[in-house]
Amino acid sequence: MYVSGRAECSNSLVLEGAVILGSTRIRKGTVVFPYVVIGFPVRAKVREFMSSPSFESRELRDLDELSQGSNLGRYNIIRSFSVIYEEVETGDNVELGHHVMVRERTIIGENTVVGSGTIIDGRCVIGRNVSIQSGVYIPIGTEIGDNVFLGPRVVVTNDKYPVSRRLVSTVIEDNAVIGANAVLVAGVRIGEGAVIGAGSVVTRDIPPYKVAYGVPAQVVCSREEYERKKKIYERET
Amino acid sequence: MYVSGRAECSNSLVLEGAVILGSTRIRKGTVVFPYVVIGFPVRAKVREFMSSPSFESRELRDLDELSQGSNLGRYNIIRSFSVIYEEVETGDNVELGHHVMVRERTIIGENTVVGSGTIIDGRCVIGRNVSIQSGVYIPIGTEIGDNVFLGPRVVVTNDKYPVSRRLVSTVIEDNAVIGANAVLVAGVRIGEGAVIGAGSVVTRDIPPYKVAYGVPAQVVCSREEYERKKKIYERET
Amino acid sequence: MYVSGRAECSNSLVLEGAVILGSTRIRKGTVVFPYVVIGFPVRAKVREFMSSPSFESRELRDLDELSQGSNLGRYNIIRSFSVIYEEVETGDNVELGHHVMVRERTIIGENTVVGSGTIIDGRCVIGRNVSIQSGVYIPIGTEIGDNVFLGPRVVVTNDKYPVSRRLVSTVIEDNAVIGANAVLVAGVRIGEGAVIGAGSVVTRDIPPYKVAYGVPAQVVCSREEYERKKKIYERET
Repeated sequence: MYVSGRAECSNSLVLEGAVILGSTRIRKGTVVFPYVVIGFPVRAKVREFMSSPSFESRELRDLDELSQGSNLGRYNIIRSFSVIYEEVETGDNVELGHHVMVRERTIIGENTVVGSGTIIDGRCVIGRNVSIQSGVYIPIGTEIGDNVFLGPRVVVTNDKYPVSRRLVSTVIEDNAVIGANAVLVAGVRIGEGAVIGAGSVVTRDIPPYKVAYGVPAQVVCSREEYERKKKIYERET
Repeated sequence: MYVSGRAECSNSLVLEGAVILGSTRIRKGTVVFPYVVIGFPVRAKVREFMSSPSFESRELRDLDELSQGSNLGRYNIIRSFSVIYEEVETGDNVELGHHVMVRERTIIGENTVVGSGTIIDGRCVIGRNVSIQSGVYIPIGTEIGDNVFLGPRVVVTNDKYPVSRRLVSTVIEDNAVIGANAVLVAGVRIGEGAVIGAGSVVTRDIPPYKVAYGVPAQVVCSREEYERKKKIYERET
Repeated sequence: MYVSGRAECSNSLVLEGAVILGSTRIRKGTVVFPYVVIGFPVRAKVREFMSSPSFESRELRDLDELSQGSNLGRYNIIRSFSVIYEEVETGDNVELGHHVMVRERTIIGENTVVGSGTIIDGRCVIGRNVSIQSGVYIPIGTEIGDNVFLGPRVVVTNDKYPVSRRLVSTVIEDNAVIGANAVLVAGVRIGEGAVIGAGSVVTRDIPPYKVAYGVPAQVVCSREEYERKKKIYERET
């Protein structure tokens, strides 16, 4: 266990085996389970650190000095084996599963849940009340609105012609639902309230309140119709 | 390292860095590798724990008191960075890879192997001699028979119209084979001995001893024919 | 923290919580972050270990004795919660993300990056300057050339008719690009410089410098044309 001298976590509960780096601030009522790393330094700093003289005699304390730390809200749950990089900000009641990685400069809104094994690869903005299921991949620069649902193992991408010099943001607007294992090709915009079926590959923008699926995904009906079917489904025993 | 006073693991080998919570019972001959958590408490208990007075001065011991623990069989192998929740039951010779998560009230039959990075999300019943490859996702309520093979990164789902109020069980019967990265849409039944091709999206029940693939998956031949082709393939150099 | 007496890592930096087994050699300038396991013994040895008399009184030191260790090059970065098995060899400047697993007898060439959550399942040969994004699955026996790009969550397989007695190698030649969540069916050869679109299922060999996508993947254009489109894309604001 290592807690930075610069960290402020007096009103939270940090359990054994945690590594808290930099001027991390963990607010009231948050629990950090065993074996969590918070404030992990960005790549550039690690490279810098490695090129410093007598590097091999350095300690965690020296690495700690490089980290800006992160800022966790109140009543967060951060579960075992998750890693949060520096300059991450979470709202109140954010919850992480196990083996989650959240990279630098990501903002996660209040009441959002990030499922186990999910990777948020940095510089993302994620809204409030978002449900990210297990094993989702969200690349650099992704923008996700409020009340969005990402099913298990959804993959978002940010390079239309890999490997290019241009990364684009994929945008998922409020209230959208993305089915399990769907792939969103770089730069698409999933409109407000749109629904994407499981296993789809989305290559174009999907208009608001439309339901699309397939490879490539095609619009098949409206959200309204989807909700009607859902109601019938919910009534079935 | 933390081993609950209520845990019984005297005939097993629990290596350094393990966190064993609750009245966990680990039977003879089982090995728990470094950095494994067993008996992780369910969400409701974590929430309850967080709302207790002077929460921030609590310790792992207090969390330990909340856990029912789990029940591991004989000669299990539980590898580093895996997490097992409370009320999980494993048969003899069960083997877990690394970074596995098994959530609460799951039963895993004897001789079953759970690959690295796989998530079993709770209340699942998994048979004997099942081979679950790496990175598989199995949601709440899934039922898997004996001798089933799940290829790498198979995704099973449990909500046909996410986000609905009705979760349904997906059933995979004995001797079925599911190819890599296939998606099973909520509530489908994969019949006994059926085979699903890699990358398929299964939207309907697949009859016993049929082979199906595609998006959406269509039946293309019988298991018998598949076995004939397999024999030829096995003979090729 | 446990570092084998047989390990040589005096010119590297091994941070707290690491478990280094066997005659592992970590060369100058490499950093091993907290909670990393290196030299994890292969399955056969674990089974042997478990059947030894008075197994339950053994220690990490006894397990350590079984491990051949691994051989890491100079200036590697091995991040928290990653596992490297025994008999792995990495070139200089290799970088691993978090929650990576690299199994036994794998060779990774210099300047190669292995993204978080990726599994390299053993006996693989991976070239130089390879970029493996997050959550990729690479099975036993896969051969990957130099300068290859594997997008997030690519799945490679090695059994054409699971579960068969014959595993085949999938080959990805130099300069190939594999899009996110694509599946390569066992035994296919992705030709030099070929490009596979995101979400594709590749069931046949793809000739050099061709672009293919879809389920199953079909050749749609040349790499040259792809590069032309890429240049236009890169110029767009």
